[in-house]
Amino acid sequence: MAQKPSIPAGTRDFSPVEMAKRNFIFDTIKSVFLKYGYQPIETPAMENLSTLMGKYGEEGDKLLFKILNSGDYTNKIETKSRGLNRSQLNKLLSCDKELVENCIFKIKEIRNRLEGYDVKDIETEFNKNYENDPIFIAFGKFFFYNSNLKYKKVDDFATYIDNLTVNMLKSYVLKSINISSIKKIKEARVISEKGLRYDLTVPFARFVVQHQNEISFPFKRYQIQPVWRADRPQKGRYREFYQCDVDVVGSDSLMNEVELIQIVDDVYKALKINVLVKMNNRKILTGIAEIIGEADKIVDITVAIDKLDKIGLEKVNEELLQKGLPQEAVDKLQPIIQLSGTNDEKIATLKEVLATSETGLKGVEEIQTVLNYLNTLDINTEVELDLTLARGLNYYTGAIFEVKALDVEIGSITGGGRYDDLTGIFGLKDVSGVGISFGADRIYDVMNQLDLYPKESIVSTELLFINFGEKEALYSLKALQTIRKAGIKAELYPDAAKMKKQMNYANKKEIAYVAMAGEDEMNQGKVTLKNMANGEQKLLTIDELIKEIQ
Amino acid sequence: MAQKPSIPAGTRDFSPVEMAKRNFIFDTIKSVFLKYGYQPIETPAMENLSTLMGKYGEEGDKLLFKILNSGDYTNKIETKSRGLNRSQLNKLLSCDKELVENCIFKIKEIRNRLEGYDVKDIETEFNKNYENDPIFIAFGKFFFYNSNLKYKKVDDFATYIDNLTVNMLKSYVLKSINISSIKKIKEARVISEKGLRYDLTVPFARFVVQHQNEISFPFKRYQIQPVWRADRPQKGRYREFYQCDVDVVGSDSLMNEVELIQIVDDVYKALKINVLVKMNNRKILTGIAEIIGEADKIVDITVAIDKLDKIGLEKVNEELLQKGLPQEAVDKLQPIIQLSGTNDEKIATLKEVLATSETGLKGVEEIQTVLNYLNTLDINTEVELDLTLARGLNYYTGAIFEVKALDVEIGSITGGGRYDDLTGIFGLKDVSGVGISFGADRIYDVMNQLDLYPKESIVSTELLFINFGEKEALYSLKALQTIRKAGIKAELYPDAAKMKKQMNYANKKEIAYVAMAGEDEMNQGKVTLKNMANGEQKLLTIDELIKEIQ
Repeated sequence: MAQKPSIPAGTRDFSPVEMAKRNFIFDTIKSVFLKYGYQPIETPAMENLSTLMGKYGEEGDKLLFKILNSGDYTNKIETKSRGLNRSQLNKLLSCDKELVENCIFKIKEIRNRLEGYDVKDIETEFNKNYENDPIFIAFGKFFFYNSNLKYKKVDDFATYIDNLTVNMLKSYVLKSINISSIKKIKEARVISEKGLRYDLTVPFARFVVQHQNEISFPFKRYQIQPVWRADRPQKGRYREFYQCDVDVVGSDSLMNEVELIQIVDDVYKALKINVLVKMNNRKILTGIAEIIGEADKIVDITVAIDKLDKIGLEKVNEELLQKGLPQEAVDKLQPIIQLSGTNDEKIATLKEVLATSETGLKGVEEIQTVLNYLNTLDINTEVELDLTLARGLNYYTGAIFEVKALDVEIGSITGGGRYDDLTGIFGLKDVSGVGISFGADRIYDVMNQLDLYPKESIVSTELLFINFGEKEALYSLKALQTIRKAGIKAELYPDAAKMKKQMNYANKKEIAYVAMAGEDEMNQGKVTLKNMANGEQKLLTIDELIKEIQ
Repeated sequence: MAQKPSIPAGTRDFSPVEMAKRNFIFDTIKSVFLKYGYQPIETPAMENLSTLMGKYGEEGDKLLFKILNSGDYTNKIETKSRGLNRSQLNKLLSCDKELVENCIFKIKEIRNRLEGYDVKDIETEFNKNYENDPIFIAFGKFFFYNSNLKYKKVDDFATYIDNLTVNMLKSYVLKSINISSIKKIKEARVISEKGLRYDLTVPFARFVVQHQNEISFPFKRYQIQPVWRADRPQKGRYREFYQCDVDVVGSDSLMNEVELIQIVDDVYKALKINVLVKMNNRKILTGIAEIIGEADKIVDITVAIDKLDKIGLEKVNEELLQKGLPQEAVDKLQPIIQLSGTNDEKIATLKEVLATSETGLKGVEEIQTVLNYLNTLDINTEVELDLTLARGLNYYTGAIFEVKALDVEIGSITGGGRYDDLTGIFGLKDVSGVGISFGADRIYDVMNQLDLYPKESIVSTELLFINFGEKEALYSLKALQTIRKAGIKAELYPDAAKMKKQMNYANKKEIAYVAMAGEDEMNQGKVTLKNMANGEQKLLTIDELIKEIQ
């Protein structure tokens, strides 16, 4: 029985026409990135789970696609649980996540370090590195100190370490220090240590830290690659989709913000999509929280303000009170909730309201600087200061951007902002960066809805030679050598099939010209060229044919 | 404690310079494919395991990267093994693979069908579909027939079915019908149903079958995407690497073979790599087996023949006898083992030797036809008939190709052939195809070793504006708008950093020109342009600068 072929839910095949359209988008975006001095990098589809886990929140961790360790992973579970009975194992599975993980990673680290060492060096190595390690202290230092070095070979020692892992975990369980949370994390770790990348930002941060000595900062890079998320598939939401990220790291100049908006302007001008750039600054939001003394309510506030148009001022204020803001704070917020007018008017109001907040004023000043540059540069795209913009609040530290398509009802098609410590999680502190991400799939949807592809972007073959038989095919192949050299995409129908079938093929593939070379044409050293759009036929030399098509 | 960032073994990051080099290779290959009328497609990184498994042999199955089902998979294991004790479970794990899989898939199918049904419809549905199902008959039909419908809701029924799965498996184990093979397959299936693609051929076959109604045949497609293999990483062998495949399906014309060799010729001419194309034909190998009456020895024969240069005729013959060929067969093989001379001479010999094999003669004729076309077309690349070429013997049915780089010691850098029933496994019979795959990583290695990249292919930014402060930056940004419109890749250093730092940046990024606009230049509406190669400086208008750089 043959399998009915299908692909996993939330993934897609791309046909030639779809590819041509998508490539038009990617090529346009790339060429703008390059024009501004950004360079491409690529990172592997698989990253270590230690790189990915804990970077996207608890929800994000669940949406990671994890890859099974190759080989006999069930044996590994066996090894790790050796010596534990079921109830102990269950206890272990519900114990404190971090400590257990630390145990496992520590053991791995030790084993890695041991490769290439003689047994006699091991104790020295250990004393040097692990003497004061809190993990081992916590487990009563029964590691090296309570055991005798009876093993002769590193392999024996490896076995010893494996046993030790189990013993460490066992002792941990038996001591019952634990209570909390996350089940099965240990097993998940053991059978899977790699995951598919979830976005391009974390791999980029990892890249920058890992290659910091090869990179010259400020590092301007772009990256266009697919990412994977185990989200429930829906219309317009895929489990595999492309991101197009462009970032500068290692410079806190506002020139970078200006440049990114120039890039947005250039890209959408080239794609002929009318857009509005919304801009905010995290520092302004912090300032607002400062002046009303409610730092933790910033999300509630922006969510409420965002509803002003829909539900009116009164209801917004009600909602704020409901969320626990004191009346005094709501009063202070009034000028901000009702903020309107031009960017300049908004900035003037903000300066008054935030007069007592140094951070807030800094944010206003940053926005003003960027807007001033953009005004002088005659950017086509409208840039609007929008205080409700708060995407990824915990993540961004300065500018926040979002781009909306004006002629289509769709969410944001580009977004980003400044982050001051992206690489910190990987050990490289104080590297500021700013970047934006173009949503290729949404742009594709917008382009399709508005039918914005230039015709030439989806042309494949321009000319088809009809195949009349062996001798004619050879004549055509020779002609094709010259024609292709002139840069024309051309092909010979491979079989001497019926004329109708060959013409059908040309029509389906939307080939603009068909060339026929039979006995007559061959004798004259010419071909008959048919324009498929108007049916016109001409008898031409190959050089004339090339001119006609070009 | 910050994590030390790293990437999984066998995977790679690509730096901007590496990307530029790789893109040069990809772009060159793509432009040739397009010139010949091939169109791009892309398929998802993840395919269903049912698409991938069993297509690459037992070894290949092991090298698939499997993706953990999202959600709480450990619970699923739990459910499936409920009611089995350890020894029963072990027995189960070593039992007949197919039957167990069938059980599981069948249950899934039932559950899917049940969604949306009322309980009262279920029995009807079941009777209609599963009455005569061999699986259920084999398990004594204790499914619906031996049980009472006590459940009130579909959820209860689902639980019932889960229990049933276990019971079915249990009964199966207890009956001990099994003996054989493959351990742990059941668990692997339950926790993973998707894998990363292993090559581009199987996904392509799946694509053709799945989209057969949208495709106009002959379908000429190319596909350039990464593939993943859980091979042991080694120098030059990666776990993630790119393949560049080009295939025609739906035509058995030898024109396609000719065209693919033209493509090889064009690609390597453009990349400036000197290559030799080796060609063989599966039908010739079949013919040889026919005339000596040893069909199953074909691999042994080609392996032995391949050693002729190294070990000499006598040893080759010894080896053949050792492999179990009768003396008579070895005698008959002599003209083939010692086959030499030009392609024409080889063909003449083969025609004599294979005179009694229809298939063999067909193969010789095919090769001759392709070579005749190539001769008339004045192909640069030498094409050599090589009987030792037997790659993927079970897979190819006609032509077999392999391309070797002449100036570097490296394996084959391109290979392929004709297959007559690739799509058959997915239910579409009698679709012949022929294709080749360019090994991007090996080509990259060859290009690096011979330093074949044209200089302009690795240029990123062409011009850097030095940043002297806010006013100058604005002046530069305006100039940059004009410069970029002229197609020059140019950037402004984002910070007003020290001159030396900015110059260092230009040097490291290998930027050819640096522009400086201070008070003087601004007053004159000009910039000072420094050529970084020779240190020459010129005071120029923006238009002059553009001309200078272009």
